[in-house]
Amino acid sequence: MPMNFSVIHTDKETQARAGILQMERGSLETPVFMPVGTQATVKSLSPRELEEAGAQIMLNNAYHLYLRPGTEIIREAGGLHKFMNWPKLILTDSGGYQVFSLSLLRKIKDEGVEFQSHLDGSRHFLTPESVIGIQNDLGSDIMMPLDECVHYPASFDLAQKAVDRTTLWAGRSKKEWAKTQRGVLFGIVQGSTYPELRKKSAEELKSIGFQGYAIGGISVGEPQDLMYNMISFAARELPAEAPRYVMGVGLPEDILEAVSLGADMFDCVVPTRYGRNGSAFTSCGKITVRNGAYSRDRTPLDPRCDCYCCRNFTRSYLRHLFNTGEILGLRLVSYHNVYFFLDLMKKVRASLHEGRFASFKREFLSRYRQKEG
Amino acid sequence: MPMNFSVIHTDKETQARAGILQMERGSLETPVFMPVGTQATVKSLSPRELEEAGAQIMLNNAYHLYLRPGTEIIREAGGLHKFMNWPKLILTDSGGYQVFSLSLLRKIKDEGVEFQSHLDGSRHFLTPESVIGIQNDLGSDIMMPLDECVHYPASFDLAQKAVDRTTLWAGRSKKEWAKTQRGVLFGIVQGSTYPELRKKSAEELKSIGFQGYAIGGISVGEPQDLMYNMISFAARELPAEAPRYVMGVGLPEDILEAVSLGADMFDCVVPTRYGRNGSAFTSCGKITVRNGAYSRDRTPLDPRCDCYCCRNFTRSYLRHLFNTGEILGLRLVSYHNVYFFLDLMKKVRASLHEGRFASFKREFLSRYRQKEG
Repeated sequence: MPMNFSVIHTDKETQARAGILQMERGSLETPVFMPVGTQATVKSLSPRELEEAGAQIMLNNAYHLYLRPGTEIIREAGGLHKFMNWPKLILTDSGGYQVFSLSLLRKIKDEGVEFQSHLDGSRHFLTPESVIGIQNDLGSDIMMPLDECVHYPASFDLAQKAVDRTTLWAGRSKKEWAKTQRGVLFGIVQGSTYPELRKKSAEELKSIGFQGYAIGGISVGEPQDLMYNMISFAARELPAEAPRYVMGVGLPEDILEAVSLGADMFDCVVPTRYGRNGSAFTSCGKITVRNGAYSRDRTPLDPRCDCYCCRNFTRSYLRHLFNTGEILGLRLVSYHNVYFFLDLMKKVRASLHEGRFASFKREFLSRYRQKEG
Repeated sequence: MPMNFSVIHTDKETQARAGILQMERGSLETPVFMPVGTQATVKSLSPRELEEAGAQIMLNNAYHLYLRPGTEIIREAGGLHKFMNWPKLILTDSGGYQVFSLSLLRKIKDEGVEFQSHLDGSRHFLTPESVIGIQNDLGSDIMMPLDECVHYPASFDLAQKAVDRTTLWAGRSKKEWAKTQRGVLFGIVQGSTYPELRKKSAEELKSIGFQGYAIGGISVGEPQDLMYNMISFAARELPAEAPRYVMGVGLPEDILEAVSLGADMFDCVVPTRYGRNGSAFTSCGKITVRNGAYSRDRTPLDPRCDCYCCRNFTRSYLRHLFNTGEILGLRLVSYHNVYFFLDLMKKVRASLHEGRFASFKREFLSRYRQKEG
């Protein structure tokens, strides 16, 4: 089915915008944060907790699910929504990034990529076409094509070759997708830190034509300024009428900056990864729950937060749970962190609708940068 | 405040009975299963999940909480109910068992027990009086006195000495409790596997006088028959008008047998411990979630169960979560197991109220013993 994306508000001071992305299964209000459920579960959280926290969409990873439990099991279950009991939208990452970062002994050629599983060493061959097939089996609402991602720093030559292959694969992905036209297919802009390559990549993808565009290959170790520059540059090269998804970003300050630069969609493992380690995001900055200063602190993680964790538990109790290695501790902090990110986006959208995004961003960052616990 | 225990139904074929235990904070329908939250959390579950699963009371451990986070922190928080945000009843085990099983270099004398913490080697001295003080600080609804528990097998002489000390300490605990009369204090019958010692222990406790009686020192490695004999024997020696709590029991079949023998209260770590390891209790017996046979099994853990896990997730998905080491897997199976135990007790109570306990027990066990997955 055709996707519809409407930009409802554009900010006067920045490139920020608020919109609605409508798809067959439901719609998304943007800017949106997508909690990451790599292996068909957002780590430590249940689907009902995600819905309660306000998640509109979950991100899953085709590479991981292809290896475990295997595409066939999920297809037989009626797709990923039924398999993990998630009624809302699903975006699946193709796993291009994982093939390059996790797998062993990979051999990349224009046809596709041969690799050994990081789990058991088994050999696999993925092509742009088979990756679309996998995502069709998963029943994704938004699919990403197989792309070639380079690390930072990458030479111009290497980055250019990756762009060329990403374009080649994007075209083949689009053709494969067009056979069923299930879900929505995005293109992924690569080009490392080279503006001319980002421009080339964006133009080539535009000429293939996608319903949305992702900016990939960022947040891979480059300095923050460079990341912002690449987002800004790529966003300007992409059509205003399509959603822009900044892959793997990021911390609250990075998301706010990327929104300012015109990005609409975000995903990051940070809320749950930090949560498991006992780092909580609060309106006054990050705090380390194990910190001895909280042993008798009977305030919530974030007094400005309305989440289940903050309405019911004290820092003192959470610290006790982390000190004793109890699972409830990492569950509650993960929940709070996901809620915090989703709530931040809700406030971003409200500020855009009310024409006060720039001042919201300023005030949020000024409080957020107060301290580090 | 005075506790009130009313036996509402007594079974005609067995010693089983259904009753109501009324206390200041609320009441309990018996027979009751008490989920174990040793360190102020039932492992992996949130308080709202416990309430949803039907828990009426949580068991916590004074020894563990005295060591971490320390009694003072919990007292300052307004007690354990507020500390862990649990509005329902709390029974605290004294930690007598833990002093004997976990602590290092313990020296026991009539005055009390000196030991080194199993966590950091710090030295502590607990007396019957200080253990009541700790439970007062915790704000327990039902307190257990410090007792001396022996392992199985124990010589008659050793078991007799433990009974003598348990009686001595029970008297001093009662005196200490009487100063504030907060909560309800139970006595603990010891005596290992010696009927004459069990009788002696019960009689001495009765002459001190408690509002409820626990049967301790069982489920410590003795054969099942011997355990049932000791429960049966001790129950007969205890006053019919007081609740009988069988400590640390047990598996569904053991609980049903103990109910038949006249026991009213139970606790066990089994539902959450098995849950973390991927063993699920079902109406047709235990199943091992990781079993390859479940990789494509789209039925719930237990088709007869109405819990959140069984209403929403398949064995195939749960197996995937365990295979990938995802926390949601152990959470869901722990939740299901706790629900299963609480639901079993609900059915036991209903069958007692309707005068069909013996046939309920027979039918349950016949289905439960069908298979082992």
